[in-house]
Amino acid sequence: MYQFRNDYSFGAHPKVLEAVLATNLEGLPGYGDDEYCAKAVSLIRDLCQAPEADVHFFIGGTAANLITIAGLLRPWEGVVCAQSGHINGHEAGAVEATGHKVIPVPVGPDGKLTPELVQAAIVPYQHSHMVQPGLLYISDATETGGIYTSAELEQLYNCAHSNNMFLFLDGARLGCALTAQGNDLTLPDLARFTDAFYIGGTKNGALMGEALVLQESVYVPGLFRLKKQRGGVLAKGWLLGAQFEALLTDGLYFQLARHANEMAQKLQQGLKDLGVSFFYESPTNQIFPIVPNLFLPILERHCAFEIWGPAEEPNHTVIRFVSSFATKPSEVDGLIQLFASHR
Amino acid sequence: MYQFRNDYSFGAHPKVLEAVLATNLEGLPGYGDDEYCAKAVSLIRDLCQAPEADVHFFIGGTAANLITIAGLLRPWEGVVCAQSGHINGHEAGAVEATGHKVIPVPVGPDGKLTPELVQAAIVPYQHSHMVQPGLLYISDATETGGIYTSAELEQLYNCAHSNNMFLFLDGARLGCALTAQGNDLTLPDLARFTDAFYIGGTKNGALMGEALVLQESVYVPGLFRLKKQRGGVLAKGWLLGAQFEALLTDGLYFQLARHANEMAQKLQQGLKDLGVSFFYESPTNQIFPIVPNLFLPILERHCAFEIWGPAEEPNHTVIRFVSSFATKPSEVDGLIQLFASHR
Amino acid sequence: MYQFRNDYSFGAHPKVLEAVLATNLEGLPGYGDDEYCAKAVSLIRDLCQAPEADVHFFIGGTAANLITIAGLLRPWEGVVCAQSGHINGHEAGAVEATGHKVIPVPVGPDGKLTPELVQAAIVPYQHSHMVQPGLLYISDATETGGIYTSAELEQLYNCAHSNNMFLFLDGARLGCALTAQGNDLTLPDLARFTDAFYIGGTKNGALMGEALVLQESVYVPGLFRLKKQRGGVLAKGWLLGAQFEALLTDGLYFQLARHANEMAQKLQQGLKDLGVSFFYESPTNQIFPIVPNLFLPILERHCAFEIWGPAEEPNHTVIRFVSSFATKPSEVDGLIQLFASHR
Amino acid sequence: MYQFRNDYSFGAHPKVLEAVLATNLEGLPGYGDDEYCAKAVSLIRDLCQAPEADVHFFIGGTAANLITIAGLLRPWEGVVCAQSGHINGHEAGAVEATGHKVIPVPVGPDGKLTPELVQAAIVPYQHSHMVQPGLLYISDATETGGIYTSAELEQLYNCAHSNNMFLFLDGARLGCALTAQGNDLTLPDLARFTDAFYIGGTKNGALMGEALVLQESVYVPGLFRLKKQRGGVLAKGWLLGAQFEALLTDGLYFQLARHANEMAQKLQQGLKDLGVSFFYESPTNQIFPIVPNLFLPILERHCAFEIWGPAEEPNHTVIRFVSSFATKPSEVDGLIQLFASHR
Repeated sequence: MYQFRNDYSFGAHPKVLEAVLATNLEGLPGYGDDEYCAKAVSLIRDLCQAPEADVHFFIGGTAANLITIAGLLRPWEGVVCAQSGHINGHEAGAVEATGHKVIPVPVGPDGKLTPELVQAAIVPYQHSHMVQPGLLYISDATETGGIYTSAELEQLYNCAHSNNMFLFLDGARLGCALTAQGNDLTLPDLARFTDAFYIGGTKNGALMGEALVLQESVYVPGLFRLKKQRGGVLAKGWLLGAQFEALLTDGLYFQLARHANEMAQKLQQGLKDLGVSFFYESPTNQIFPIVPNLFLPILERHCAFEIWGPAEEPNHTVIRFVSSFATKPSEVDGLIQLFASHR
Repeated sequence: MYQFRNDYSFGAHPKVLEAVLATNLEGLPGYGDDEYCAKAVSLIRDLCQAPEADVHFFIGGTAANLITIAGLLRPWEGVVCAQSGHINGHEAGAVEATGHKVIPVPVGPDGKLTPELVQAAIVPYQHSHMVQPGLLYISDATETGGIYTSAELEQLYNCAHSNNMFLFLDGARLGCALTAQGNDLTLPDLARFTDAFYIGGTKNGALMGEALVLQESVYVPGLFRLKKQRGGVLAKGWLLGAQFEALLTDGLYFQLARHANEMAQKLQQGLKDLGVSFFYESPTNQIFPIVPNLFLPILERHCAFEIWGPAEEPNHTVIRFVSSFATKPSEVDGLIQLFASHR
Repeated sequence: MYQFRNDYSFGAHPKVLEAVLATNLEGLPGYGDDEYCAKAVSLIRDLCQAPEADVHFFIGGTAANLITIAGLLRPWEGVVCAQSGHINGHEAGAVEATGHKVIPVPVGPDGKLTPELVQAAIVPYQHSHMVQPGLLYISDATETGGIYTSAELEQLYNCAHSNNMFLFLDGARLGCALTAQGNDLTLPDLARFTDAFYIGGTKNGALMGEALVLQESVYVPGLFRLKKQRGGVLAKGWLLGAQFEALLTDGLYFQLARHANEMAQKLQQGLKDLGVSFFYESPTNQIFPIVPNLFLPILERHCAFEIWGPAEEPNHTVIRFVSSFATKPSEVDGLIQLFASHR
Repeated sequence: MYQFRNDYSFGAHPKVLEAVLATNLEGLPGYGDDEYCAKAVSLIRDLCQAPEADVHFFIGGTAANLITIAGLLRPWEGVVCAQSGHINGHEAGAVEATGHKVIPVPVGPDGKLTPELVQAAIVPYQHSHMVQPGLLYISDATETGGIYTSAELEQLYNCAHSNNMFLFLDGARLGCALTAQGNDLTLPDLARFTDAFYIGGTKNGALMGEALVLQESVYVPGLFRLKKQRGGVLAKGWLLGAQFEALLTDGLYFQLARHANEMAQKLQQGLKDLGVSFFYESPTNQIFPIVPNLFLPILERHCAFEIWGPAEEPNHTVIRFVSSFATKPSEVDGLIQLFASHR
């Protein structure tokens, strides 16, 4: 069975596991007040060239999103995001459950917002009977695999600030974004051109964990308390610190993401060579081939993947393949072969 | 350094770790929709003799508490609990952040509620300008180490139901309660005499995890969605399932808890033999000796523990020692020896 | 100055005021527990032919909307409504502030939902990572002046129920809907084909007040407590009861709404006769003429109204005129004359 | 029937009603954006000697409390108040429904907090697993009729600020406090020694309405939006402005409160002369006589009042009499006579 269902179908990279195991019987303070978390924070500040940034670890993306947003906004404020943004759909109303409206903006197939789209969307919200846009949420890579360039990010940052909004970047798939072809963004860029972003571990080699980086200027004094209040503090907090220390040592994080990208891109190219069309040309680890409906039952017997939705072409469906740190080249080859044998 | 600070200062029991490692490269569905979770659910239903109970896994006690309570209550309802209840203090207002008032009831040193205390506390809440008590929250073991008997639990259950409240039992330290001297409660009792309770893993040999058991009669149709909404769903959900499967196979869960109790009780007896007084005579893994303030700096050099508060006796302090699955007999002996050498 | 800005620009109809004044020094129980509220409830049940309906008074539409919705939904549920629905825009995120997502559905210029639109919109929400649609919100008259027929309402009711949703009808402008040309809905229809609806007083002759009618089958036991909790209970509750008693005696409510409709329709016809186009042909008290931008400054000197938005036709703007119980025929004539003299 | 049940059992003072009636057919902008509100704001700023204070009108105390508190606090913060504080009991969990914990502090029979009580109560809340105290809530007059002196208020203000809390004063019965014997507080004092307070109208001659005064230094930019979001904005906002303009012109507000106090004090003295004991010696319009249980049925036939609770003396009950702007001297005399004839 080829595993292309998601990038969280496997546990952790061996080096990450090893780091976790090494802590097992040390006897450590709880709640992240341990040396592993301290080292991971220090590594992240260094990599971001942001010595005063505040760093917090979360067990997953939804927790990171809702707690950060609740920490940054006042109760009359809302969040602007792409219609396809993760917080607008697949988090079961997590942001609204903190009391804040999500303002969805229709976007193109790459899932990216632009200053023009944002500017147009917030015009009616100047009215005092509407929520005040207080935060701009973007994802990199986006939910459809797109990536932001450094120039695009800077423009969105300026757009957000000139409209009194924070810019918050969901980095659940940040590794794949930063190692994709065409990317020119770096961690220091993210620390300069966002108010808050996170480095996603769950989808890039960790058992679980996202590392939120809050810029110095947006310090939220009660963020730990807020995280505790929302059930987001892991008692054995060092499990997150140790994993991030392992991931961020010697470039493992980027190496794993690069591998995932390479696997997806190889698969994408291989299928294109067979004449398969793609719903969107993603440079990252999520790819969206359009396949004949008749082929779906065959595919399902050999491969785990997700249905994305009906294609425009009759009797065709958009599906999603996702690669990860654990994807093997032989799986890619095998899957291409499967397509080839059913042309 | 003797480790008596808490029961979450160590990672997981080797058998639990082994179970986690075995899943690492299997390629599994996310969000708890995997065979390990299914097996753990099945084991729990069997152990509880509750084949229709709904079982959900959480990453920690605060998440389990707030999500269960939010799932069971209507917005005009509040939660009755002991003044010393975990949700009333150390969860940073988690229940209130879901919109529900916590109604604290003063209790004795064992931290236990009684039908009489509950009945008296809710009298004023019949007034329609006050919240309606909708849920009775208790802990077993309590925050001060006390345990409920089967008869006491049944009485509280009847008291709750005759007042239109759910009875919810926080089992963060359930293992130690069920294996304590004087305990006559069983898992099937808990499934009969509570509406919901959880089997705590974090404090009894797991890396993290609590298993909530909802009785058939209180099925909450949207609980998974609610858990997702509050950031409480682990993407790699099998990590919880595999751990609970390991813990609940061949009685490991009870064996670990019994060990923790034995270590604490041996320590308690040893210190008593040296003339040390205790703030409360806990039969579980948390014990509360009263020590002279002059001894504290010495103790701190050799042992991790927590200050509980000033004692009534002048110049004395109540401290807390907590044992766990990882406590070694030699640590107990060493600590008794340390006390003995400073009498 | 002609007053067409809104239908809440004037106080109350003289008979309503008189009823309020009559209570002034009687000495009455607070919070709605008085004979005036009891009489108004009784009148409403009679008019609705719903002797078991639960009736609650609110001070305004936003309070009625948010408290009813919070009372009906469970925390993982969301509200489906028209993109142009009042709760989706002009209530400053009131529904989201109760923790529930609003799911907006694009609709036509009449602002009306259909079973087809609803059915299509909720398809993706079957996914357990999304909120569960729990309530369908519609307005009659809609925010753009449209009205529902009895058949349409019944279909929406069936659509809602077959999808496990409540149907809730915002009746802020219900009087104008029920007395509009083309209407065939009655209060008993509303009591049969909605789970909850309200009879708006603020926009139809009262100082303030909306009367919520909850069908017997959807009794919400804690609704009074919830209303108190959200700051929605008026201490001198009889002020609402007395006003509704006056409005619902001898058909005053319908007489005032009919007058408002007649004034708006006369104005609409008069302007059409002058060649003015309308953005939407509303049969109720809100009308939406398209006027040349050059005419706006003239109009603003003589008339209070609102800008609705840019028209498709270049250099033209959609504006809104709203009539009320207090609109005088001479104002309508004068406004038509003003248009005529600037053709 | 003598009316001593509450100070909101009657409508409005004739001058207040007159002011409301005068606006009835003027045609005014909605939501408080009218000249009456502007004049009332101006009067309040003048009376408070606070030209930059932000003033907002609310329809009642619960709305004023919950919206102000939600506007001032961050999500991880809680509210410290007297155990007997209105927000801790009779608002049905309104503060908790905004997500904030209420931290009740046991107080004496006058219902007053002191810096010592506050300081002791917040000690455990320094722990990062507990909510952070962010606001100190007091009432003047208190729920049991007590009043604060200027020195006491200044001390609490300093105590609050030195602990990073706001000081918010619930002035539902502020008129009676400021005109009570022993009072030395003035409106300018309140503007200096609180961060926010309100001037209660509902219980002092208005149909409804509280005027919140936010000091310049605590400006909450989104307060109007927040009020709209919580259903607290009256569409016909001028109803509140006109009432406050009438109340605050020529000292009517203080005159009405002084009358209420005189009636209650005359009653209190008269009953004392008959040997009746009082649970607390209130100098304001709420008084708490202790009466034999056998007398209660007689009293109930002639007088509206509330049961406060059982007295310490066997077979006696504490009751509450409340006077208002509408209490007649003849009622006081009659009630004293009733007691006298049943000694």
